[in-house]
Amino acid sequence: MPQHSPHAIPEGDPFGPDALPYGVFTTPDAPDHPRIGVRHGAFVLDVATAAAEHGSPYADLLDQPVLNPLMAAGRPVWEAVRAEIRGLLDAGVLPGGYARSLDEVTLHLPFEVADYVDFYASEHHASNVGRIFRPDSEPLTPNWKHLPIGYHGRAGTVVVSGTDVVRPRGQRKAPSDAAPSFGPSLRLDIEAEVGFVVGTPSPGPVPLEAFRDHVFGVCLVNDWSARDIQAWEYVPLGPFLGKSFATSVSAWVTPLEAFDAARTAPPSRTYPLLPYLDDSASPEPGGLDLRLEVRINGEVVSRPPFSAMYWTAAQQLAHMTVNGATLRTGDLFASGTVSGPEPDQLGCLLELTGGKGPWLADGDEVVITGWAPGRDGSRVGLGEVVGRVRPATA
Amino acid sequence: MPQHSPHAIPEGDPFGPDALPYGVFTTPDAPDHPRIGVRHGAFVLDVATAAAEHGSPYADLLDQPVLNPLMAAGRPVWEAVRAEIRGLLDAGVLPGGYARSLDEVTLHLPFEVADYVDFYASEHHASNVGRIFRPDSEPLTPNWKHLPIGYHGRAGTVVVSGTDVVRPRGQRKAPSDAAPSFGPSLRLDIEAEVGFVVGTPSPGPVPLEAFRDHVFGVCLVNDWSARDIQAWEYVPLGPFLGKSFATSVSAWVTPLEAFDAARTAPPSRTYPLLPYLDDSASPEPGGLDLRLEVRINGEVVSRPPFSAMYWTAAQQLAHMTVNGATLRTGDLFASGTVSGPEPDQLGCLLELTGGKGPWLADGDEVVITGWAPGRDGSRVGLGEVVGRVRPATA
Repeated sequence: MPQHSPHAIPEGDPFGPDALPYGVFTTPDAPDHPRIGVRHGAFVLDVATAAAEHGSPYADLLDQPVLNPLMAAGRPVWEAVRAEIRGLLDAGVLPGGYARSLDEVTLHLPFEVADYVDFYASEHHASNVGRIFRPDSEPLTPNWKHLPIGYHGRAGTVVVSGTDVVRPRGQRKAPSDAAPSFGPSLRLDIEAEVGFVVGTPSPGPVPLEAFRDHVFGVCLVNDWSARDIQAWEYVPLGPFLGKSFATSVSAWVTPLEAFDAARTAPPSRTYPLLPYLDDSASPEPGGLDLRLEVRINGEVVSRPPFSAMYWTAAQQLAHMTVNGATLRTGDLFASGTVSGPEPDQLGCLLELTGGKGPWLADGDEVVITGWAPGRDGSRVGLGEVVGRVRPATA
Repeated sequence: MPQHSPHAIPEGDPFGPDALPYGVFTTPDAPDHPRIGVRHGAFVLDVATAAAEHGSPYADLLDQPVLNPLMAAGRPVWEAVRAEIRGLLDAGVLPGGYARSLDEVTLHLPFEVADYVDFYASEHHASNVGRIFRPDSEPLTPNWKHLPIGYHGRAGTVVVSGTDVVRPRGQRKAPSDAAPSFGPSLRLDIEAEVGFVVGTPSPGPVPLEAFRDHVFGVCLVNDWSARDIQAWEYVPLGPFLGKSFATSVSAWVTPLEAFDAARTAPPSRTYPLLPYLDDSASPEPGGLDLRLEVRINGEVVSRPPFSAMYWTAAQQLAHMTVNGATLRTGDLFASGTVSGPEPDQLGCLLELTGGKGPWLADGDEVVITGWAPGRDGSRVGLGEVVGRVRPATA
């Protein structure tokens, strides 16, 4: 029985039987055999091996070096696999001999990223940034409350939590400088975000009500940002090198349905929305009560509330595809910086310091964690995203 | 001998032995066997089969459904494969029985696109667009002449020439409108561009002089653009849905070295460039004398000269990676709209019509072709990129 097992989970641990996030791991004894595991407290459950040894029809989908085949299989399979893993837990097959300590495994990028899109869905963040980057204009651009603004990022530089991030070099020019200069970024920042991972592809638009059919799960994201590079480059075509050096994602993707108890109404809308974005009549609220925490060198600097996001993930997906753009398994879209209304709820240093810094120093370690309320007072965890800043290369 | 063959190439054909672009094709008798072919006049040479039947060490690299494995093999292999194909042509093995009429084959997307980046490298284009989109500001933003501005596009919607393009739907709001409206784009446009396809990956910066080691070849690109959607959405994070519905690329990738005779000096620079972009001392000029032609429904509407581009492809690649961003096999970066200084050299309808239209109508067919001067007065061709506009879906 799990509660008597040496792998029992402490009371209140966010990685209990209601979370069961998926990741990809290797062990020192089989470093060439990456396979899918499920997080359970401070352990990885080797569900690939357990499924194979117990005749599961999903054993092949779990004995994979990335989540993509499982993600592509669609919601009925996702639910069946999750039910099977719960069944193995209930039967005491898991943890059994299948638990490996997180300390002894290596975690890998859990899915192959197809396209990566980053949104800008927090009104607090967008307003704060607007005031800093465009002090002579209205903080929110006129389009902001009519559509979820987003842009494509670099899929090839999405890295798994634990990967060091090298300080980028690039061009920057303060308004007072006569000419641009080149060197390591002097304003390296974080952005605490929530990412949504697409499983089921789509040949075209995904309406609000089809969100659940396409989104496999949720991860945490640190969208590292070099503010000096970004400020000089981003007009008129948007952020590019200020972001493209690295984006960290958690090693764990928590299935979307784990957050059913965390659904919450998004903020009230200032303007009526066009029908494809109008979720006012949706049977289920589109927001998610995810609670993030950002630590730098062990010190909590912020607790951003995802429930404050103006645009929901379902609206982001509907918008992203309404022009007919196809969706692929492995598409990742992130929320944009999660910031709440309070000074201790801001998701990046740009906001936390009013644009003045201090910024990240070499050697700094950033840890973003998150959880959501589950059933009966429990917590459902998101995998942490950890990254340490390495000095720029010469 | 080729000149006596039924597959002989007419004098002046841009797809002679100096071009030899690669593509992926299937035939009606083997529709499930996509493989690499080489264009030769109006024929596809089945080099995959020829290589296998003549004991080539590169047969496996050519019998592939995408160019990526060949592209990943690196420049020495690219040169060896090209030399071998030329050898088979010289020996009369090719065309031999290996030529298939273009009419009887199906051409496929020739490579799996990793990340797609679109630049904005024509001063004429950027100035013209700036005047139309931002009439109250300087046409060029202050950064424009200091760095090649670019942004990431959607890799998943890159389609091969010949694919119909469905008119996108989306939000648009003219300044005089009280609120945004939704519907099929009323300002569907083209952008005639040149694309560069990355073969050899890189863990970090690619300096100007390493361009040749990483870039496999050149294609033509039509970066379809919905101007009404773009104008409403693009501030502050850049183009998104106005572009992401489709980007067409030619079915043929012409090897970079085919354009050695077309190298030309880029325009003189207004400001000194930072060292990583400064090509003034490069042993070879970084520009390319590629001559594009845009036809709509058979009528030539423009002849954009690539030689007028302010930023070279080597500068684009150096910039794109200078922050440490990695490069993957299959990364595609496009030049941005190619426009020259003359009214008949503009690469999009936005410029050709001064922002007033007419725009593309349903049923319109757009064909972009291109060639470069080769050795001894010959021409080296780029594959055409063709697309027809289909009505918006209901």
